[in-house]
Amino acid sequence: MRSKFIKEEIRYTGEQLHSLFAYDNFGVTGDSIIAFIGAYDVSLKEIVDLEDLKASKRLVSPKMLHFIAEHFDVDLEKAILRQYLLIMIIKELLNEKMANLKVTRQGTDLQDNDAKLAISTATASPVSSLVYVGVNIVSQADSSVKTKGLADYTIDPVVFATEVMDRYTKEIERVSQARCRIRWVE
Amino acid sequence: MRSKFIKEEIRYTGEQLHSLFAYDNFGVTGDSIIAFIGAYDVSLKEIVDLEDLKASKRLVSPKMLHFIAEHFDVDLEKAILRQYLLIMIIKELLNEKMANLKVTRQGTDLQDNDAKLAISTATASPVSSLVYVGVNIVSQADSSVKTKGLADYTIDPVVFATEVMDRYTKEIERVSQARCRIRWVE
Amino acid sequence: MRSKFIKEEIRYTGEQLHSLFAYDNFGVTGDSIIAFIGAYDVSLKEIVDLEDLKASKRLVSPKMLHFIAEHFDVDLEKAILRQYLLIMIIKELLNEKMANLKVTRQGTDLQDNDAKLAISTATASPVSSLVYVGVNIVSQADSSVKTKGLADYTIDPVVFATEVMDRYTKEIERVSQARCRIRWVE
Amino acid sequence: MRSKFIKEEIRYTGEQLHSLFAYDNFGVTGDSIIAFIGAYDVSLKEIVDLEDLKASKRLVSPKMLHFIAEHFDVDLEKAILRQYLLIMIIKELLNEKMANLKVTRQGTDLQDNDAKLAISTATASPVSSLVYVGVNIVSQADSSVKTKGLADYTIDPVVFATEVMDRYTKEIERVSQARCRIRWVE
Amino acid sequence: MRSKFIKEEIRYTGEQLHSLFAYDNFGVTGDSIIAFIGAYDVSLKEIVDLEDLKASKRLVSPKMLHFIAEHFDVDLEKAILRQYLLIMIIKELLNEKMANLKVTRQGTDLQDNDAKLAISTATASPVSSLVYVGVNIVSQADSSVKTKGLADYTIDPVVFATEVMDRYTKEIERVSQARCRIRWVE
Amino acid sequence: MRSKFIKEEIRYTGEQLHSLFAYDNFGVTGDSIIAFIGAYDVSLKEIVDLEDLKASKRLVSPKMLHFIAEHFDVDLEKAILRQYLLIMIIKELLNEKMANLKVTRQGTDLQDNDAKLAISTATASPVSSLVYVGVNIVSQADSSVKTKGLADYTIDPVVFATEVMDRYTKEIERVSQARCRIRWVE
Repeated sequence: MRSKFIKEEIRYTGEQLHSLFAYDNFGVTGDSIIAFIGAYDVSLKEIVDLEDLKASKRLVSPKMLHFIAEHFDVDLEKAILRQYLLIMIIKELLNEKMANLKVTRQGTDLQDNDAKLAISTATASPVSSLVYVGVNIVSQADSSVKTKGLADYTIDPVVFATEVMDRYTKEIERVSQARCRIRWVE
Repeated sequence: MRSKFIKEEIRYTGEQLHSLFAYDNFGVTGDSIIAFIGAYDVSLKEIVDLEDLKASKRLVSPKMLHFIAEHFDVDLEKAILRQYLLIMIIKELLNEKMANLKVTRQGTDLQDNDAKLAISTATASPVSSLVYVGVNIVSQADSSVKTKGLADYTIDPVVFATEVMDRYTKEIERVSQARCRIRWVE
Repeated sequence: MRSKFIKEEIRYTGEQLHSLFAYDNFGVTGDSIIAFIGAYDVSLKEIVDLEDLKASKRLVSPKMLHFIAEHFDVDLEKAILRQYLLIMIIKELLNEKMANLKVTRQGTDLQDNDAKLAISTATASPVSSLVYVGVNIVSQADSSVKTKGLADYTIDPVVFATEVMDRYTKEIERVSQARCRIRWVE
Repeated sequence: MRSKFIKEEIRYTGEQLHSLFAYDNFGVTGDSIIAFIGAYDVSLKEIVDLEDLKASKRLVSPKMLHFIAEHFDVDLEKAILRQYLLIMIIKELLNEKMANLKVTRQGTDLQDNDAKLAISTATASPVSSLVYVGVNIVSQADSSVKTKGLADYTIDPVVFATEVMDRYTKEIERVSQARCRIRWVE
Repeated sequence: MRSKFIKEEIRYTGEQLHSLFAYDNFGVTGDSIIAFIGAYDVSLKEIVDLEDLKASKRLVSPKMLHFIAEHFDVDLEKAILRQYLLIMIIKELLNEKMANLKVTRQGTDLQDNDAKLAISTATASPVSSLVYVGVNIVSQADSSVKTKGLADYTIDPVVFATEVMDRYTKEIERVSQARCRIRWVE
Repeated sequence: MRSKFIKEEIRYTGEQLHSLFAYDNFGVTGDSIIAFIGAYDVSLKEIVDLEDLKASKRLVSPKMLHFIAEHFDVDLEKAILRQYLLIMIIKELLNEKMANLKVTRQGTDLQDNDAKLAISTATASPVSSLVYVGVNIVSQADSSVKTKGLADYTIDPVVFATEVMDRYTKEIERVSQARCRIRWVE
């Protein structure tokens, strides 16, 4: 499993969440997780979770840290389980860094009290499954949704991105290895 | 997804980790998680993770809280991803209860500093996949492995078991529902 | 598994047979079967079974009872087996109501002697599999294809729709439950 | 898909319901359905549906017509859907032969009023999935369960077996062919 | 598994490599391999292997022998393994015909020393998996890539196509049959 | 994918062809191919291909080069396609070494004219799929089956084993990589 921090700023519009995005644009081959920084501006037609679409949960953020993981199997349930793994790793790391339990999980989103800190989604293409997580960097004073961001905790997003990708990569590799040394039962 | 706390004490020998155990013994049908209390005494021949077997990680514990989840699909990788979900839920709940970050995760085990608190494993039968988690209730003064248990934190194992099963059940149901409302991407 | 009778009249053009139609339009989540009444007017480009397309089996009907079942697994063969289950349930119910063997099955269509009574198809999207059954309500005097409809048997389509959906739902749930209590064999 | 009527009488003990039985004993290769006549005497340890086991539904019959279908995919849900297809084909044929609606279906069993006529089950091995249907030939006057058999309707079991296998084979082939000519949808 | 040599000349533009092409255009049903002769002129947007796309490996050939195999399962890895089988069969047949080891394999392409003789690719649609092999008939004196073709070896492309399809069909059938007579192991 | 030549001599009895053999005995983790030298003496009850069993194709050989490949997916058809890949790689290498076309393929066995040179089989366990290839080292003058071995061609079995494993590993890795860079088609 490969990981790569993309240095150029990319406006996340939802169109990035499709098969082979990492390979096609950044030469990252195989199962992968990439991260990049940029605004978040997903139009309704790019929202993959129809619940969010119905709720018209159209979020806009001037600066977020984006993660896209792609795995070359086509199992949406597995994709959602990996989404949980990634969001829980991010929560663990945030709380470790702040040495407290500030960050809580609401399903597959992260909060700091009632302020939204990170959102996530999972989907599938005909050749792969995809996980997206967006972590706020700056909080938006004027937004209808209360938010917090990495900047509020003076966490450097680039360093943080690398740590998250390292941990996710390591855990996914543990999953792969465990799969190959487990005895079946009756 | 069903859950059930089994009131009778059961010595966990590893033989419980097989297909249809919950249905066969306690009438629990479908995808399920059950919990029970009892000693932990798994013989080498019942160890499913061959790494543990090689390390001769034969643990004995006089009193543990045991969880067995069974899902009727046959995908070992998915089983391991659910093992992560369950162990992370247990970690979250322990830290919330103690309002600190004492409990840390080492892969799919839980620790309190250098003391072992919970272990877990996943496997598959020809009709289902299975997750096991064992949480120490009493710590063992005389053991070669340093341990901590729920009793050290004055956490009631029966209440705790119910909370864990509720959360796991709720998250697994969220996974199922999410699966049925997500648009695919190109 | 959910079911819902949609009261508004909907012209079935084939475009309804796509993933998440029931969720997107009627808030029906998860595996589901919905029914509605309306004309049948499927253009050639919406026909999914290419055999029908080749035969230019373009049917038009002023009033039909339409069923769409969606299951969130992606196995076309399973979809076709469920198509058989649904069409056989409809046949059983029709014959029971009329207390005779009038309705016969030709593969996955239903006939009353040489008059066409119901047609069906199955297909898959990248996230789900889909079954469609259309049952004539009114027969068409002027059509090139001889037809019969529920009105000819004075069967109320709304009541009938509900009974069909109840039976299908019940059988699919029996399938799910059976799956979780069957011992594997060598 | 192959079919074969086995002329020798075989006592059905449940041990026949395992992978490669038809190939190993009768040289029938590939997906197949076989039929044979003999007593039905399944010991508790060979019962695959644990619900029947719990109900101690141990049936004994002096003479039954047995069907075993084997398909070389490993999907228990698909096996159960094929079980429905086979039992519904048998029901259709029986009612056609008697030109009435005498035979009714209770899930995956067949009845003539309150008399049991046919039972069925499905299971999976690690290389295939299996369907079993047993149709009574003679009814048992002294049994605790009221039964009816083919002899009561003066239906010849050998002819009947061949007709059932022909229909099942034909429908399964229709499923295979349909699978290969259906356009996917969005 | 069906095979068919299509007599009409078809310009291969890459658009032919999609689901149900053989059924839709030539009435070939089920798993199949077809062959036809024509120019090779694949635009960049039709290239399925993104590595080739990145390398801008846009080949043009005035006359090639094209093979398209379609299998109705959706497993890209299996498709690539079948691509290996087909290319290796073609290599074996060429060397047998020339009674030497002239033709060598570079991954999934064939060469005669440094001249390109055949190229191949595999992909998947939402209902099937597809293999393409193109074998040069005429070599191009003026091309930047050195090529050889069947004409250089005085091999008749129509006869050759039939032999390749016969061998591929036979081997795929052997695979199917082997699948249905193999005992599983612990 | 890992490979390992096992230096100790092992009598191949068929019992080696089971899940996790390489991990359990030689610490080889994940998808792997191992090779070792030893007698071939497979009892009837260990034969996995029932066709061989029916033909009582019980072979005995004093010295063979054995290959066992294990892949952690459970798809027998894929296992057989990998068996083809491995046997074809072995054939290619043998002919390259001898610079002629002496070695021919009969399905998944290799011959030198009418002398048997290599045999192969594939099977599946509930957690993995397995390929076995046995290449004769010494030919048996007194055997009923005419054989040839690597010694007849003065090919060093250890060097040969390493070359075969290198090529197989490389091709399997190409398959994995190709899978992750291929665009799907409609």
